[in-house]
Amino acid sequence: MNQIDGGTCAPKGYQAAGVAARIKGPQSKKPDCALLVSDAPAAVAGTFTTNVVKAAPVLWCREICDKGRARAVFVNSGNANACTGGQGIEDVRETARAVAAGLHVPEDEVLIASTGVIGVPMPMQRIRQGVEGCVAALSPEGHGDAARAIMTTDTTPKETAVEISLAQGLIRVGAMAKGAGMIAPNMATMICVITTDAAIAAKDLQGLLRECVEHSFNRICVDNDMSTNDTVLCLANGRAGLPAVAPGTEDFEAFAYALRHVCRQMAQALVRDGEGATKFVEIRVEGAATDEDARLIARSIAMSQLCKTAFHGSDPNWGRIACAAGYAGADFAPARLDIWIGDLQVLHHGLPATYEEAAAAERMRGREISVRVSVGDGRGACVYWTSDLSKDYVSINADYRS
Amino acid sequence: MNQIDGGTCAPKGYQAAGVAARIKGPQSKKPDCALLVSDAPAAVAGTFTTNVVKAAPVLWCREICDKGRARAVFVNSGNANACTGGQGIEDVRETARAVAAGLHVPEDEVLIASTGVIGVPMPMQRIRQGVEGCVAALSPEGHGDAARAIMTTDTTPKETAVEISLAQGLIRVGAMAKGAGMIAPNMATMICVITTDAAIAAKDLQGLLRECVEHSFNRICVDNDMSTNDTVLCLANGRAGLPAVAPGTEDFEAFAYALRHVCRQMAQALVRDGEGATKFVEIRVEGAATDEDARLIARSIAMSQLCKTAFHGSDPNWGRIACAAGYAGADFAPARLDIWIGDLQVLHHGLPATYEEAAAAERMRGREISVRVSVGDGRGACVYWTSDLSKDYVSINADYRS
Repeated sequence: MNQIDGGTCAPKGYQAAGVAARIKGPQSKKPDCALLVSDAPAAVAGTFTTNVVKAAPVLWCREICDKGRARAVFVNSGNANACTGGQGIEDVRETARAVAAGLHVPEDEVLIASTGVIGVPMPMQRIRQGVEGCVAALSPEGHGDAARAIMTTDTTPKETAVEISLAQGLIRVGAMAKGAGMIAPNMATMICVITTDAAIAAKDLQGLLRECVEHSFNRICVDNDMSTNDTVLCLANGRAGLPAVAPGTEDFEAFAYALRHVCRQMAQALVRDGEGATKFVEIRVEGAATDEDARLIARSIAMSQLCKTAFHGSDPNWGRIACAAGYAGADFAPARLDIWIGDLQVLHHGLPATYEEAAAAERMRGREISVRVSVGDGRGACVYWTSDLSKDYVSINADYRS
Repeated sequence: MNQIDGGTCAPKGYQAAGVAARIKGPQSKKPDCALLVSDAPAAVAGTFTTNVVKAAPVLWCREICDKGRARAVFVNSGNANACTGGQGIEDVRETARAVAAGLHVPEDEVLIASTGVIGVPMPMQRIRQGVEGCVAALSPEGHGDAARAIMTTDTTPKETAVEISLAQGLIRVGAMAKGAGMIAPNMATMICVITTDAAIAAKDLQGLLRECVEHSFNRICVDNDMSTNDTVLCLANGRAGLPAVAPGTEDFEAFAYALRHVCRQMAQALVRDGEGATKFVEIRVEGAATDEDARLIARSIAMSQLCKTAFHGSDPNWGRIACAAGYAGADFAPARLDIWIGDLQVLHHGLPATYEEAAAAERMRGREISVRVSVGDGRGACVYWTSDLSKDYVSINADYRS
């Protein structure tokens, strides 16, 4: 598998655009509308927020993903179209209709995603201008503009692409994502659009996407809030010209590997760009009775405000890590608890290990911290990624209206 | 019921003391050892952390509470005696033995609680000095010194006392508590010692204490971490000279009312003194299908970093409140969601209500904020108390080794 350029336009048959339509405010010149189009009907799969309060576009996309076929994705930033009632639903439909008219495709093949403030009606005139602008600007080089147009508090656009060999030739997988705050386990204020020129049945793509999301976007944490809008979409247009990948084949394994890789890259990029984040922390839990126990423990550490402030302060405070493991809701014997910071063991069988405080502090100092926790000799394991909690996080969120 | 002076020494037959024994460090002059003694054997009840990793004194106290009889409580701050293995257990026993010798009481009637850093062996020579100092300083006026000696990052001592009439006379309930960070639902780094001169069987006291803790200490949130040491102890020595209060009687109801009141006062005091807290926020959820659903929703809002930073910024950001309600794990119809900030309705049936932004901001500005959330017409309700999340919280916890 090779890393390649081109983001969502790296796979064959995709064009993209990103334009500014003042969705973020009357004076805003920031790009805020993105369009991604496949030149052939694509199989589509999606995973969405499990929040009881769902934004209007989420409801719309779920219906399309149930049918499994799409041509385009339109995303706006600046307004989440959440808590907007019947008008919000109507506005999604009108947006899809405008995109469909511009592209000459059926409106029920146009996916819509929104991110931004909640409870404010969509500025539909500007949205229509955004749609028009995007349709006019579509190009195979438009992926970067699109990735920039979906940003809110993100500090950098996030995109990636890889190519991998199947039995009869190469396929490509590309992606763009946004999200920096409200990133919780179970996908927070985040949107990710994935493209591929592999051919795959929609139902197979749906199953695979769900599994990939579970081990990427559902294993990250910036704060612990889950938004009303979280959406991961994947389009597969088959334009590589290869036979459809089918479960149980080596081609399927290769495609799954590439898709998982892309999801993980995007998930990690969200954590690295976490609001106020200065550190990227990998939490690896092993030796648990089950994978689910390991997940609960890793999640508990990744979500702990006390662990996250200790990471921020470069404090090798394993006491807080042991605490967070202990209240995770998974049973283990405290006398079997081992903790490593980087390669340095700091807790051995529930007791402080012999080590130099300076050596531990050294391993906390960089931008990347790795924590390994073993809770016994079970086979359950899990990896989580989190950021530190800084004063800047508080500044960003005490002032920004989202 | 009347509020009275005297803290844990307000009920008859209790003496207390607090002294400095350098547990917090070789140079520390802060008080760090507290002793509370009943002049007659008392019925005792306790509730403890549910963390898998439990500090040594927690294991010790559980055994004594199972037997139901105690004479004294010794508390040290500065060292949690957690993750200290077999030596930690031995140190608890030795401390109890020292207290027992000083007071001429059985060692298995001496409760021990510790709070402070984790993974550091107890400085037993200093502990012994602390015990001696406390025994020498015991007095019916010692409650304030004791309350100060159990503080760690607390900025003020926390104590209270009330008296209430039973059928044949007055009884009193007093309490002291510590805790400012690591305050999570289910009792975090907190210690509370409650005294009463009512007479009650230990098993009745245990049942009642559990219920009172559930609706007080288990309904508060500063950060979301639960410590290895959380302990609430209640001693009832019967020195008011009245008949034992028995379940099902009016006396029992009166005693329960007083105990619940004292627990709630202490729980709220912990939130008000939360690390870096500048605001006290009451979250009231109603209309849920069950009390448990209401609790999940209230807890979700109380724990949300985004809600807590919005409270800090005096931002009437009901979108974040709706979000946190939505991912709480309780089902409700978003179209039935109502939110009030103070007396001002900001969300009506899932849609923004008509109100002036300035009026909403006004209600966020003070040190006390109240949020009311209605999710339908069920009878389930719950109240939670939380603090805001400030930059000072990050400073305190990025630097302090706990």
